[in-house]
Parts: sequence; structure tokens; C-alpha cells
Amino acid sequence: MPQNKLPPLDLYQVAGIRLAAVPAKIKNWQRDDLLLIEINEGAAVSATFTQNAFCAAPVTVAKEHLRKGNIRALLINAGNANAATGERGLRDARACCAAVADSMNIDAEQVLPFSTGVIGEHLPLQKILDAIPGAAAKLQVDNWQQAAKAIMTTDTVAKAASRTVEIAGEQIRVVGIAKGAGMIQPNMATMLAYVATDAAVPQPLVDELVKEAVAASFNRISIDGDTSTNDACVLIASGTTGPQIGDVRSAEYQQLKAAIVEVHIELAQAVVRDGEGATKFVTVEVTGAASSEEALKVAFEVGESPLVKTALYASDPNWGRLVMAIGNAGLDQLDTEKVNIYLDEVQVVEAGGRATDYTEEAGQKVFSLPEFTITVDLGRGDCREHIWTCDFSHEYVTINAEYRT
Amino acid sequence: MPQNKLPPLDLYQVAGIRLAAVPAKIKNWQRDDLLLIEINEGAAVSATFTQNAFCAAPVTVAKEHLRKGNIRALLINAGNANAATGERGLRDARACCAAVADSMNIDAEQVLPFSTGVIGEHLPLQKILDAIPGAAAKLQVDNWQQAAKAIMTTDTVAKAASRTVEIAGEQIRVVGIAKGAGMIQPNMATMLAYVATDAAVPQPLVDELVKEAVAASFNRISIDGDTSTNDACVLIASGTTGPQIGDVRSAEYQQLKAAIVEVHIELAQAVVRDGEGATKFVTVEVTGAASSEEALKVAFEVGESPLVKTALYASDPNWGRLVMAIGNAGLDQLDTEKVNIYLDEVQVVEAGGRATDYTEEAGQKVFSLPEFTITVDLGRGDCREHIWTCDFSHEYVTINAEYRT
Repeated sequence: MPQNKLPPLDLYQVAGIRLAAVPAKIKNWQRDDLLLIEINEGAAVSATFTQNAFCAAPVTVAKEHLRKGNIRALLINAGNANAATGERGLRDARACCAAVADSMNIDAEQVLPFSTGVIGEHLPLQKILDAIPGAAAKLQVDNWQQAAKAIMTTDTVAKAASRTVEIAGEQIRVVGIAKGAGMIQPNMATMLAYVATDAAVPQPLVDELVKEAVAASFNRISIDGDTSTNDACVLIASGTTGPQIGDVRSAEYQQLKAAIVEVHIELAQAVVRDGEGATKFVTVEVTGAASSEEALKVAFEVGESPLVKTALYASDPNWGRLVMAIGNAGLDQLDTEKVNIYLDEVQVVEAGGRATDYTEEAGQKVFSLPEFTITVDLGRGDCREHIWTCDFSHEYVTINAEYRT
Repeated sequence: MPQNKLPPLDLYQVAGIRLAAVPAKIKNWQRDDLLLIEINEGAAVSATFTQNAFCAAPVTVAKEHLRKGNIRALLINAGNANAATGERGLRDARACCAAVADSMNIDAEQVLPFSTGVIGEHLPLQKILDAIPGAAAKLQVDNWQQAAKAIMTTDTVAKAASRTVEIAGEQIRVVGIAKGAGMIQPNMATMLAYVATDAAVPQPLVDELVKEAVAASFNRISIDGDTSTNDACVLIASGTTGPQIGDVRSAEYQQLKAAIVEVHIELAQAVVRDGEGATKFVTVEVTGAASSEEALKVAFEVGESPLVKTALYASDPNWGRLVMAIGNAGLDQLDTEKVNIYLDEVQVVEAGGRATDYTEEAGQKVFSLPEFTITVDLGRGDCREHIWTCDFSHEYVTINAEYRT
């Protein structure tokens, strides 16, 4: 069972943002699979996208439109990734934007398209075009829950989070939704996230905020960022509430940033908790590193090792695999005799070998928990970093072996 | 079932090399688990070792002894890796060498120790010391088969290969054994290989040969070389037969090298065929690359992707996952419209999208074979490289989740 997954609770609304989810029958299923998001005039929109060389057609089109600015709508479909679809894929993505523009009386270039699902098949374009006017007709500010459901693919639970923060006496809201469940490696899981705030933030600061928030959240889960064909994370500041936030050193900016980062982290953790076949949610914390880079390198080496992940699944505190993974991070001149490892509060490795007081029973007890922290102290500096990961189960193989059937 | 694994056929012998396998009861099992190899005076020995920062005690000791030269014996135990065992681990490894030296009337520094098995537990030293004299007493030139069996851990079949090659009218022999079965990633599988020839090769050329042979074999399987705590590959030239081989450009050197590389490749492929839980043996060939480095990078990205490997297991020609993996290799300015992909002779991707004549049935047929080749043509140069990989099954999770129980 996925760990500690919760369906989203009541979500706040963001003035200026309206949403509508409709069933376009993109696959042969009974559910909403098309999401339209309307953004008010004057909002600032920024996004990060996959770095995959085979980026999907909608990614290419979204980047192109984003460069021109003044974005007024997002269209997201589940069930088909419109990736590796060549020229026709690009034409299809543009046709979707044009249809949204028609229904909303804006320009096609003001629409960002997103797709997630199977790769290499063409979009069922007509079905999407037919569904768009209906979506445009039912846009609502309180549709975030339905929106979170409409973008799911192999997700087993909808993912959403929201916060309020008081800035200069005004209640500012931050609301986000995400999808993503493939967890085994950075390379493959399509992850989409949409976060909106009603704060008034100039474009350059929204650009900065989305980078910082993604670095602190989605880039710290086994999906280490931007590598599936369709990944995207979008941040919208509608600017309908509170004072203009104009200075990165201001208390206002820092407060808003904290709330935005929290929403991103909650969404990213929800993706890990819903990892395909996951039964455990594990934080890998690396301390005593000479740099942040090496701390993250070690954390990912541990958190992505299939041998560590199968040991997590088996609740087997096989610390030899932790040690091997650390040794594989390629750190320059690592003094293994300074390495200490803890499972929650239980010290398992001391000075590079088995800790004197360690017992299998104590280690086993921690490894049996649904949620715990592995702390690696490298003993060579003052930097620390953490990532979140999950275990690797039979269920993972089943899900991925049978994905298309 | 592992694919096309064959127990070794009749093996040649190498004059100057004698072997003995004995049961030391390193674990609670009924089998030979300790191997002693005697090397004649005047032989040249070279080796490559793991790059893992947590290298095992025997690796540290073996490197130290190898630097001094004049190696006369190898001692290999299964069942315990003597890794992450600190100072005591080093003392244990040295004690093993001293015991071999006593039994064989050589110096302890002329012995190379090797261990494979569970990490973080101390060697059952006394059991090994007790078993050494018995091993020394039964050294034989024709014990290669027993040797291959004695070094197995999770291997399901013993791995050995041999060749003869005529050099300057003399029959030269090359014989090798190997162990290793963990296949999912480069990081973890302990792999040991011992190859001997009776050719007369000066030390610098043996050093060169082991590097070239490993690069062409063990560095082209998912274990991409030198990264578990205990990996080692040893090449011995006993020098008992044929002319001295003194020039890398000579026909003699090239003939010998070809035979040595062949033996290494057969052993490396045997490791993949016996991959934990493997049901398929797949060659990933990358052509049209701008450099060998990028060809290998793409090949490993495809061959190590868990999503590709689960698709192989499911016999599902999910080419979208191939495309994603290629896109993740991080090639500079990859023009995806020049990429073609073939499953054996079936073209599945043409100019970056689904090939016009491709049918699911044709792809399915290839993916259902126990052994086939995925060819990726990048269309941007003349370099080509290949690796060998296997699929990723339920059985893999079972084996690795239950390894210590």
C-alpha cells in the first residue's frame, strides 16, 4: 500500500483563477481527463520544463508561448502524452490552443498546452476539440479538487495542497495540484504541477520563485527534475490580493516564498508517497558534507539504489547496501572511517563499520516503520541536504510490466 | 528463468596454474566455498579493482601486494565479503595470506586475497585458516570447473570459458572463470573474474591486456565496472608456452589479445545471462554516434532504465520508453528527428516517431524472444558501441528483498 497518502482536504481558492474538468474520453474510461485553467489578465506565469531531448510536442509549444508572455489559459489532458509524435504532434497541440482561444476569446499564443499519458500515439484531437467549449462554459474558482483528479494517470490518489499566509495585513493564498507516481528513477516519471497564488508578484520574481520552489521540492525526490518527456511545473501569481511584492530581500517576499515552497514540498512528497508500488516513505538526510552538491549526490545514490530500495521493501536493515551506495557516489578522497549512519535515532554504522551498540533488532524495528529517516554523516564538512524516496516492490514491477495492457 | 545459461563445457588447462576448491563452511552450507590458485614462479599477474570508496579489506590488501609483484597465489572465499569491517577486516585478510604463505612456502605478500558475500560481517577466520592446508595439499591443474563452482554466491550456474589460439606454431591456452549475478545497476553487483593464459607476456603488456579486455567485456554489462566493494578481475600469464610476446603491434600480441578478449566477453555475457531474475538477454547497440562516449552513454541509459527493463520482462515493445531513455542521455543538441530504432530487423522508430510500416505484432514478436538486439541509430556520426543487459522481473525483487533471510 502507498504510504500515508491522503486525499486533499479542503482547498483555498485563488482569486483570478478559474478551473473546469471535463470527460473528453481520451481513453476508454469514465472520468474527467481534460482540465482547463483560466488565468486573469495581468497575472504573472512562469514554468520549468523537462530537459529530455525528446520533449513532447506540448512542451515545445508551451515554451514558445510562454516566451511571448501574457498567458491566459492552461489546457491539460491525461491519457496521451503527445510525445514522439513529430510534426503532427505539434499541429495537434497548436489546434488545442486555438480551440481554447476561440472559446475564451483570447489568442492561441496565450494558451499553454500540457499532456500526460502514453507516448508515441497521436492525440484523439477531435475529442479534445469537442470537449473544450463545455469546459470553458463551466469554469469555477472552487474546482481545484476536480482539477487534481482530472490530471491523474497511474496516480492512486489526487494530490493537492494549500496554504494561507498573512502579508502586510492581507491573507494571501497559495494552492497547488500535482500528478506523478512513477518513482524508481529520475528519468521517466511524468510529473505535472500547477501552483497559484493571489499575491501580486512581478514576472522576474515569479521566475525566481518557481526555480527555488522546484529545487527544494520536485528536484529532491527520485524524479530529480525535468527528465521525462512531459514534466512541467507552473507557478501563477494572479496579483489580485495584497501589496505588490517587489524586493527579494523584503519580509513579504520571504513569507510568500515560504508558503509557496511548503506547497511544492507537500505536493512532491505526495508524489513519493504515491510512488508506484511504494510501501514506505523514506527521507535520506546527508550531513557533514563538504558541499551541497556532494550531499545531494550521496543522498540520491542511496535513495535511488535498487538494492537499497528492495531492502527497504523487505524491511531488512541491510546496512552493507547503504555503505556500498555511499561508496559509489564518487566523492573525492572520502575517508570511510569518518562515516556514521543512523536509522532514525539508531546508529548502525560508526567510523565506517558496524556500530558497537547496534543490534539487528533495533535496525529492523526502524526499517519496519512506514516512514523513517536514514541519516548519513560524512564527517567532512558542514553542508547538509535531504531527499525523499520510497521502496521498490513487486507491485512496481507489476505496474510497469503491465502499463499498456 | 535465466537465459541460455550453460554450465561450462570442458575447459583447457593452463600449464603453471594449479587450483583447489574446498569446503570451509564459511556459511552454513554444503559446498566448496574456498578457492586456492597457485601461480608458477615467473608468471605475470595484473588486475583491475572496484572504484568504490568503501572498498573491501581484501581489495586493499590485494592492491598493496600486487604493487610489490611476484604474485604466487590467489585465495578467494565466497559467503562473506569482508567489507566495511575496519582494521580487523584488514588483519583478517592478512592472516589469510600468511596462512597460504605457510602452506605453500612463499611470502604472505605473494598472495592476493579476494572475498565475496555479505557485507559488514567479520570473516569466520579460523574456519578459513583451518581449510587452507587441505587446499594447498590438493592443488591440480584440472580443477577449473570446481573453481568456477566454489566462487559462486547468488549465481545459479558456474561461469567459465576457454580458448586455444595458435601463436608462432604453438597452441596457447586461455581459461577463465567468473562469478556475478546482480544485474540491475552498475553500482552493486560483486563480480570476480580470473583469467589465465600460458603465453609468455611481459608485465606491462599483461597490465594493458587486462584493461583492454575488461573495457570490452565487464564494462559493457549493466555492472559498468569497478563499483561494488569487492569487484576484481585478474589476468595471469604463466609464460610456460610459446615465444615471448614483446610488441603490441605484433601479430602474436593481436592473436593473443583476441582470445583473451573473447574469454572475457563470454564470461561477462554469462554474468548477464545469469542476471538475478533475468528472463531475457538483450544487446543494446548504438550506431551513428558522434563519439564512443556518447554511444555508450545512450546504450547504458537504455539498458539500465527500470522502465525499459520492466517492458522487456513484460515482452511489451513499449518504444516510448526507449525514446525517453535516449532523451535522458543528455546528448548535446540531439536532433530527435534523425533517430531511428530497430528491434532486431524491425524498424520501430523512424525519424524520431513511430515508423510508418511498424506494427505492434512485429515488435511484440521480437520482444518475446529470449535474446534480441535493440539498435539505436542516432544519425549524427560514425561511432558505434554496444552493451549487454537483461530484463527486470518479479524474481529480481524477490531475490534482493530476501537476500539475507
